[in-house]
Amino acid sequence: MRILVANVNTTTTMTETIAASARAVAAPGTEIVGITPPFGAESVEGNHEFYLAAVAVQEAIRAYEGDYDAVIQAGYGEHGREGLQELTTVPVVDITEAAASLAQYLGHRYSVVTTLDRTVPLIEDRLLIAGLAQRCASVRASGLSVLELEEDPERTLKAIVAESVRAVEEDRAEVICLGCGGMAGLDAAVREATGVPVVDGVTAAVTVAESLVRLGLTTSKSRTYAEPRPKRIVHPVAP
Amino acid sequence: MRILVANVNTTTTMTETIAASARAVAAPGTEIVGITPPFGAESVEGNHEFYLAAVAVQEAIRAYEGDYDAVIQAGYGEHGREGLQELTTVPVVDITEAAASLAQYLGHRYSVVTTLDRTVPLIEDRLLIAGLAQRCASVRASGLSVLELEEDPERTLKAIVAESVRAVEEDRAEVICLGCGGMAGLDAAVREATGVPVVDGVTAAVTVAESLVRLGLTTSKSRTYAEPRPKRIVHPVAP
Amino acid sequence: MRILVANVNTTTTMTETIAASARAVAAPGTEIVGITPPFGAESVEGNHEFYLAAVAVQEAIRAYEGDYDAVIQAGYGEHGREGLQELTTVPVVDITEAAASLAQYLGHRYSVVTTLDRTVPLIEDRLLIAGLAQRCASVRASGLSVLELEEDPERTLKAIVAESVRAVEEDRAEVICLGCGGMAGLDAAVREATGVPVVDGVTAAVTVAESLVRLGLTTSKSRTYAEPRPKRIVHPVAP
Amino acid sequence: MRILVANVNTTTTMTETIAASARAVAAPGTEIVGITPPFGAESVEGNHEFYLAAVAVQEAIRAYEGDYDAVIQAGYGEHGREGLQELTTVPVVDITEAAASLAQYLGHRYSVVTTLDRTVPLIEDRLLIAGLAQRCASVRASGLSVLELEEDPERTLKAIVAESVRAVEEDRAEVICLGCGGMAGLDAAVREATGVPVVDGVTAAVTVAESLVRLGLTTSKSRTYAEPRPKRIVHPVAP
Amino acid sequence: MRILVANVNTTTTMTETIAASARAVAAPGTEIVGITPPFGAESVEGNHEFYLAAVAVQEAIRAYEGDYDAVIQAGYGEHGREGLQELTTVPVVDITEAAASLAQYLGHRYSVVTTLDRTVPLIEDRLLIAGLAQRCASVRASGLSVLELEEDPERTLKAIVAESVRAVEEDRAEVICLGCGGMAGLDAAVREATGVPVVDGVTAAVTVAESLVRLGLTTSKSRTYAEPRPKRIVHPVAP
Amino acid sequence: MRILVANVNTTTTMTETIAASARAVAAPGTEIVGITPPFGAESVEGNHEFYLAAVAVQEAIRAYEGDYDAVIQAGYGEHGREGLQELTTVPVVDITEAAASLAQYLGHRYSVVTTLDRTVPLIEDRLLIAGLAQRCASVRASGLSVLELEEDPERTLKAIVAESVRAVEEDRAEVICLGCGGMAGLDAAVREATGVPVVDGVTAAVTVAESLVRLGLTTSKSRTYAEPRPKRIVHPVAP
Repeated sequence: MRILVANVNTTTTMTETIAASARAVAAPGTEIVGITPPFGAESVEGNHEFYLAAVAVQEAIRAYEGDYDAVIQAGYGEHGREGLQELTTVPVVDITEAAASLAQYLGHRYSVVTTLDRTVPLIEDRLLIAGLAQRCASVRASGLSVLELEEDPERTLKAIVAESVRAVEEDRAEVICLGCGGMAGLDAAVREATGVPVVDGVTAAVTVAESLVRLGLTTSKSRTYAEPRPKRIVHPVAP
Repeated sequence: MRILVANVNTTTTMTETIAASARAVAAPGTEIVGITPPFGAESVEGNHEFYLAAVAVQEAIRAYEGDYDAVIQAGYGEHGREGLQELTTVPVVDITEAAASLAQYLGHRYSVVTTLDRTVPLIEDRLLIAGLAQRCASVRASGLSVLELEEDPERTLKAIVAESVRAVEEDRAEVICLGCGGMAGLDAAVREATGVPVVDGVTAAVTVAESLVRLGLTTSKSRTYAEPRPKRIVHPVAP
Repeated sequence: MRILVANVNTTTTMTETIAASARAVAAPGTEIVGITPPFGAESVEGNHEFYLAAVAVQEAIRAYEGDYDAVIQAGYGEHGREGLQELTTVPVVDITEAAASLAQYLGHRYSVVTTLDRTVPLIEDRLLIAGLAQRCASVRASGLSVLELEEDPERTLKAIVAESVRAVEEDRAEVICLGCGGMAGLDAAVREATGVPVVDGVTAAVTVAESLVRLGLTTSKSRTYAEPRPKRIVHPVAP
Repeated sequence: MRILVANVNTTTTMTETIAASARAVAAPGTEIVGITPPFGAESVEGNHEFYLAAVAVQEAIRAYEGDYDAVIQAGYGEHGREGLQELTTVPVVDITEAAASLAQYLGHRYSVVTTLDRTVPLIEDRLLIAGLAQRCASVRASGLSVLELEEDPERTLKAIVAESVRAVEEDRAEVICLGCGGMAGLDAAVREATGVPVVDGVTAAVTVAESLVRLGLTTSKSRTYAEPRPKRIVHPVAP
Repeated sequence: MRILVANVNTTTTMTETIAASARAVAAPGTEIVGITPPFGAESVEGNHEFYLAAVAVQEAIRAYEGDYDAVIQAGYGEHGREGLQELTTVPVVDITEAAASLAQYLGHRYSVVTTLDRTVPLIEDRLLIAGLAQRCASVRASGLSVLELEEDPERTLKAIVAESVRAVEEDRAEVICLGCGGMAGLDAAVREATGVPVVDGVTAAVTVAESLVRLGLTTSKSRTYAEPRPKRIVHPVAP
Repeated sequence: MRILVANVNTTTTMTETIAASARAVAAPGTEIVGITPPFGAESVEGNHEFYLAAVAVQEAIRAYEGDYDAVIQAGYGEHGREGLQELTTVPVVDITEAAASLAQYLGHRYSVVTTLDRTVPLIEDRLLIAGLAQRCASVRASGLSVLELEEDPERTLKAIVAESVRAVEEDRAEVICLGCGGMAGLDAAVREATGVPVVDGVTAAVTVAESLVRLGLTTSKSRTYAEPRPKRIVHPVAP
């Protein structure tokens, strides 16, 4: 099976990191194809950038030549999953939702630890829309931007662990979700520091996508995610 | 005061209709400027098209040269308002929210009557995110597409009245919101047929935008709608 | 157009202050008429007093001779708006709701800063009933009674700013609503101190009422706010 | 123990009926005192009348000379319970809440069958405020006014049974609450017709009030229901 | 009337304490019969133990020879009440629900103070299912296990008072529910220390059960709590 | 990896059917072990039976000798998952939750079609507790008991298809969950009849359990699902 894993920013090294992370957990026989959007921001940290990313990912998937069995949208708090679902019949898995839905099996409540404070409301709203907010104890920000995450790994880990510990002690979270595609690989260290299970969105999404494909499940075309109606559309392009 | 009224589709005659409707209710001294997005669909009726519209409107507002005091996003169930709010300090008013927020002053519960069934969940989700869903009795579809609305005015009115009556009698709505920018001008006829107040989104948004401007209120820049951070962004263009 | 602005307490100087505040923002051609209830408390800070005020305002409006186009009920957390809506077909706007509904256009969440702690639950309950509680981050009390607000303006400002800052920093509010008719005029100072938009209920209600009137919208008479049925009623009077 | 049972309308025969109904279920040693409000409507069926009733009942309780151990407010969907709670330290029991809270012990969901359609939203709102709405399957109207209830007992029973059956079959109610003080005595017939338990508000409230008194429980004075602050209040009187 | 009061653990001295507490408040003519489950844990403090208790109590009630008029399940946060309701037509009252439902008459919000932190989510979930969570300000743990409660009464009182004070001051509770059958008798001391009403679950349940019996109300058999269908069941026994 | 799949009733043929269904979708290398509880009912269709099943499954898992990597509880609307989570560190997956959580990836709202009407409230309550109720359009009953499902396959399919079509057309479900372990194998036929994706709980749970194991995720032991405290427990046995 082939799964398209769409990065939401234009930084190709990050696409590679995400794809590598996905491959590490993929089942034998699953091919992971990293997708970089044709336009948008080098890192995505606010509503305007998230909307650009949503459209850029949709355009990238439309342009993809070849078959595929599932699509993963690898942005945390990302808009746009509903648009992808209209463009394809295969399952579409958003990493924000994949992490939360698996976390709910592991503890009574979960928290998300993300990058900047400004993305907290985006994640909260996406969890609300997805019907996954009820058991969310909190969404907490580490204060580090997406690009800062990679600059100083030690500082990054320290900041994420600090917020994770607060989530467990103050907000009563029993599971932590790492709230950024760029946090892949930190789960073991955070689990050790907090003593609670830690869910990474990208790897969670891979196994969820594989599950849906293996079960023969596809996106419902009965109403909300029906194929777009035929009409004149001018699609945007990179300049 | 100058208010930019952004149509969400690329049909310029619809931009003109919307702007005319806005002008009809604008206060003396308010200039209405209709904006047509540079790319996207000729009518917007699903998630993919709504995401395109969201970005296209944001790009149009970014490109607008000149001052303005408020922005109205004139699509019902439209994504994207949060992105616009990051791009400007002036108030941004979405017509879905404007209609609902005024309807709530007039009756215990309100219903929205929109175009196609597939847009119902989009409107429901946007009302949920906006914190305006609790008093929504129902969102009902007339079954007519956006472009069909104008083809046969009599059929249009009949279909909208039929659903409005059902909303009042079956769902206990006490107010009807016309759920499409293209329904402007039907309010009097629907009110007469149903006996309840009827709110049109575009005109509602004009008075709300004027209110915010007159009160000197601006978009909060403290967190969710802070200005985008400086970074490399490739903005899409029409081909 | 003529708008009746009903103070909820019997202190006529406060009626004048509220009316002046309303006039300062009213559109040209809008006449503001201050109404003082015929009985009730000199300041309204609890349920018993709010119920008295609700009835006293309804009696005052019933007794008003002359035409009017809208009614504003100028008490924060006030009971009674639903009763007024039965007595008239013109729009009725409660300042608690007007402030909240405009605040929601400006930020992701808003807080209310009010007078005494005992009025906090009243405001919370009214926002719940009004369908405006979801995006309310908190209702906070300054600890000052209504009458103390005017005694020492410096202390008042300091107390309100202190709670507003806590609302922004601890509760994540992005907009502040001034939760008392007697706080009119403090908005600029609070905005400066907190850096977020500040909404005053009375002035918000004036522009909302004007909006509804200009749009030709009236109170729905289909069910909840239908005219009272003919029956024997003994109306109370001041002794 | 002495319990004051406050009718909410000015019809003294209804006060007597309610008091008789209360006495029929009161424990030995419980004295029931019927209270008729000094002003208001002969029957209470809308917001304006309910607000009048709220104040009239509060004035009647303030004026009551003698000791008492609990107060029952015998109106369905009635405003005002919170005001009574400020005026006394003894328990205050609203019949809308008493019926719902006991119904919840008996079935998974309950419905309320009331008089006119216009009172349905009032009851819904009071259950919402009271935290008792989650398990309410529906509030249904029989279409009979309060005074019509007594005119033709057979018609009354038929109408109430018809709506109760619909509540059970269509709304999945497992318990019926009789939603009007004037429906006392119909419970046996409705139970027989529907096969589900039927709760009458007045008798439910008597046993709840007795429970609270026997347990030595009193109204909390810590915040919301603290005694009114000392201030000048002009109390209304009957003309 | 005879009420069966089922302890949820196997410690017979605790059954006696609970029964004594129930008798102290029971009306003249009410016989209290303490029931000890035939298997399970000596104290119940987690999900596995609560499930054991649920079944053990159901088996004990099934085995009870003799008539009875109501059943009280005397565990806080206990699973199983729904199962008991299928086994009998008489009212079944859970002490978690009885305390909360009476607390709601006394203040705007209530808190529960319980034993160990691990039982907090159980109580929260049971209140959610019961439709009684909306007005719950918090569930707080004293940190003492069920058996420790009796070891050092002074320490117990101190710990419970400390959390109760926090509930009042930080969580805005206006009423405290004692969240463990083993806390009976502490209500007076906690009320004195906090100044707010304190509800004990066992005594609350007795008066609620008596109320339901006196009103002739029984468990609805129409759907959720219908008698089990005839089938082969192997019932567990103590070894 | 070895997954224990616990049937909730004592009918061993049903254990075998469920295990076979699980094996059909299990990944290579996954061993499925069917578990039949030592006591309980031959089919589980009500609260009393579900509580028996909960304890019986927990006892069966406690008694299982040998290693295992995950546990699936294969009852729809089943109590008890929280108890299992205390008894083991490996992931525990309930089929009600697995079906719902995968369905949410496929459509805007999902419905559950189950057996008897009396189990509908159990399923609703479990979805509520699990935080998966928001996007549930409805839970519908086919009217067939668990054992009737196998008696007449044609009638069974017809009944389930009929309710599924109603869920899609009347309740706006876009995905159907088959709400009984005994409905395994009907998914293809129901999908064909309704045109929407159909999720079977047992197979969904297998892929979810495999996902959690592959990701190295375990049950959080920090609070709610901590290991039971050491104490005297009398475990029940089959007679």
